[in-house]
Amino acid sequence: MPFSTLRLQYAPRICTVTINRLDRQNSINAQLLEDLHQVLDQLEADPDCRLLILEGQGGVFCTGMDFTEVAGDTSNGADAEKAETFMRLLRRMSLSRKIIIAKIDGKVTAGGVGLVAASDFAVATPRSQFSLSEALWGLLPACVVPYLIRRIGFQPAYWMTLSTLPFSPEEALNYHLVNEISTDPDEVIRRLLLRLGRLDEAIIFDLKAYFRKMWIVTEQMEQTAIAEITRLVTDPRVRNNIQEFVNYQRFPWSPR
Amino acid sequence: MPFSTLRLQYAPRICTVTINRLDRQNSINAQLLEDLHQVLDQLEADPDCRLLILEGQGGVFCTGMDFTEVAGDTSNGADAEKAETFMRLLRRMSLSRKIIIAKIDGKVTAGGVGLVAASDFAVATPRSQFSLSEALWGLLPACVVPYLIRRIGFQPAYWMTLSTLPFSPEEALNYHLVNEISTDPDEVIRRLLLRLGRLDEAIIFDLKAYFRKMWIVTEQMEQTAIAEITRLVTDPRVRNNIQEFVNYQRFPWSPR
Amino acid sequence: MPFSTLRLQYAPRICTVTINRLDRQNSINAQLLEDLHQVLDQLEADPDCRLLILEGQGGVFCTGMDFTEVAGDTSNGADAEKAETFMRLLRRMSLSRKIIIAKIDGKVTAGGVGLVAASDFAVATPRSQFSLSEALWGLLPACVVPYLIRRIGFQPAYWMTLSTLPFSPEEALNYHLVNEISTDPDEVIRRLLLRLGRLDEAIIFDLKAYFRKMWIVTEQMEQTAIAEITRLVTDPRVRNNIQEFVNYQRFPWSPR
Repeated sequence: MPFSTLRLQYAPRICTVTINRLDRQNSINAQLLEDLHQVLDQLEADPDCRLLILEGQGGVFCTGMDFTEVAGDTSNGADAEKAETFMRLLRRMSLSRKIIIAKIDGKVTAGGVGLVAASDFAVATPRSQFSLSEALWGLLPACVVPYLIRRIGFQPAYWMTLSTLPFSPEEALNYHLVNEISTDPDEVIRRLLLRLGRLDEAIIFDLKAYFRKMWIVTEQMEQTAIAEITRLVTDPRVRNNIQEFVNYQRFPWSPR
Repeated sequence: MPFSTLRLQYAPRICTVTINRLDRQNSINAQLLEDLHQVLDQLEADPDCRLLILEGQGGVFCTGMDFTEVAGDTSNGADAEKAETFMRLLRRMSLSRKIIIAKIDGKVTAGGVGLVAASDFAVATPRSQFSLSEALWGLLPACVVPYLIRRIGFQPAYWMTLSTLPFSPEEALNYHLVNEISTDPDEVIRRLLLRLGRLDEAIIFDLKAYFRKMWIVTEQMEQTAIAEITRLVTDPRVRNNIQEFVNYQRFPWSPR
Repeated sequence: MPFSTLRLQYAPRICTVTINRLDRQNSINAQLLEDLHQVLDQLEADPDCRLLILEGQGGVFCTGMDFTEVAGDTSNGADAEKAETFMRLLRRMSLSRKIIIAKIDGKVTAGGVGLVAASDFAVATPRSQFSLSEALWGLLPACVVPYLIRRIGFQPAYWMTLSTLPFSPEEALNYHLVNEISTDPDEVIRRLLLRLGRLDEAIIFDLKAYFRKMWIVTEQMEQTAIAEITRLVTDPRVRNNIQEFVNYQRFPWSPR
């Protein structure tokens, strides 16, 4: 079954999911969220798949929610549903019986940082760049924050969000947002497979469930995240910021 | 309105608060706490102030509570009130709609480390030095700890407190207690303003409130901190340690 | 009183506990757990002991639970009791009125990593190596995890457990699992004593109790850990993995 927003490649024991929306900067729309959930359903049932690689293309990993779609949404329900579906995607990645590896070659912003944070391992090429620029638009990376704090600690997550500044791969490595920088990420992945291929799926499942009990991310925290992003994205001022950008390429901080 | 313990300077979009108690090593007394709360009241109501810079002078950022004042306090109520006012200061810094930057050039000890930990960003000159030496006196940096753990993680905060050893700026950077070391901190701040000046105050406020919900510092934890420091500082043995030092410059670990 | 699994050496203000089971790779059996609790009882009552050094010998610090003993256990009760005794050991180390230093020269795996994580300070020689290989056996370092997350943060603890890969001393330092790498750990310890010897035992006790209130490790989390390791170690598949290894040196991932 082909997906309109993803490409799927199989190699022995390695499945690669490529986000295929380069015309929209690999941003996240409702269809991509649905396709990601479906591809996870499919791959989690495939015993040959040991490592699940998530990647972008054309110098873009993922740039977060699709502003064009947000600008066109006419009901608050659509925003809340997308937030809930995205939050659920991050949770299931963090609880999956597959080992999920973010393979980053290029731009990672907003919700894309969430996909990295919820992965088990992240490898980035030297040309990669990371940023959370939501605050410039009056938004927050609300669903990303719990998983980002879990991965890099409170203060780096906080400053990345408040500063809106881009992070280099070296900074991302320093904060442990990525595990390794490499010009040959496939080689890194092949090396990992040698060890990780020995793990039984049952213990991967047990391990992830266990670590969730040993940390502070809760269902309630995720509900708080969904409520907060929905509140912000339906705020008239924020909506205006997004529409001005989508329709006229005007930034909120540009002189009027 | 002038403050007896602070100086206030205005530049376009940048307000600088300078702790002005160099005769007491920029230590924190009841008056400084009151003045810091008042200056925050004033600056938070000032729409032109985008960055709030907190600094010391004369090679001292801040050296924590004023032992001379503590030695002279005759009622436990004064100690409890100061602890509560200091704890409230750290909380409001962490929730302020202004971006607060600690600009450090020199010595930072005890409660001064708390001011750094509760700031949004910290830049330090190479001659800066950090330490929590409370334990040598039979005390704990009780109000500092929640914000220090939040900023640098459990173990570094724990070891800094237990070891009482000084940290170099390089170590402080390694632990992310400071974000940057620079011989020209004003240049670092000017650079930050280019990006941070674009943020609407409303989203800064929302962001800080949101991150508080995503972390473990609670009102109850702050009450535990206030109770613990009050208990310790009113302990006869600790009080004797402080009085011996204030009156005779004798350290608790000196041979008697 | 001599211990069958430990050696005890006294120097002024420094007590050294050496794990003495090199014939079993310094692994942890029921007797070692009992002896460690007894030696802690003894040293905590000794006012001359300021620093308590925990070390291994012969290039092995500690390699976690003794699989030979586990393979021979015939009742689930023995496993549960050992898990509870080990968990209680880590907790009391983290709450002890003595400063506990892990002095590492060589191999540290599984439960041995827990001893390091629960220590106040860890120094390692360059030939040291760290790993959590439990998952390869269908197990988890369940009792280690709460103290490892506390020490090195969620993601490094998570990845160390999931990857099962060895960590070099440099990586361990980068993650703050060890505080220092040195070819002369005794010199590091002597230097620490100069400062730490000034601390009153009462404040060490207060400090550790206070930090426990400022972090997420709870009694309930420890009970979850004990239940999880007991569940796994009594699972027939895991028990078979262990018995195949003990009896025939067959690894779970070897071709049959």
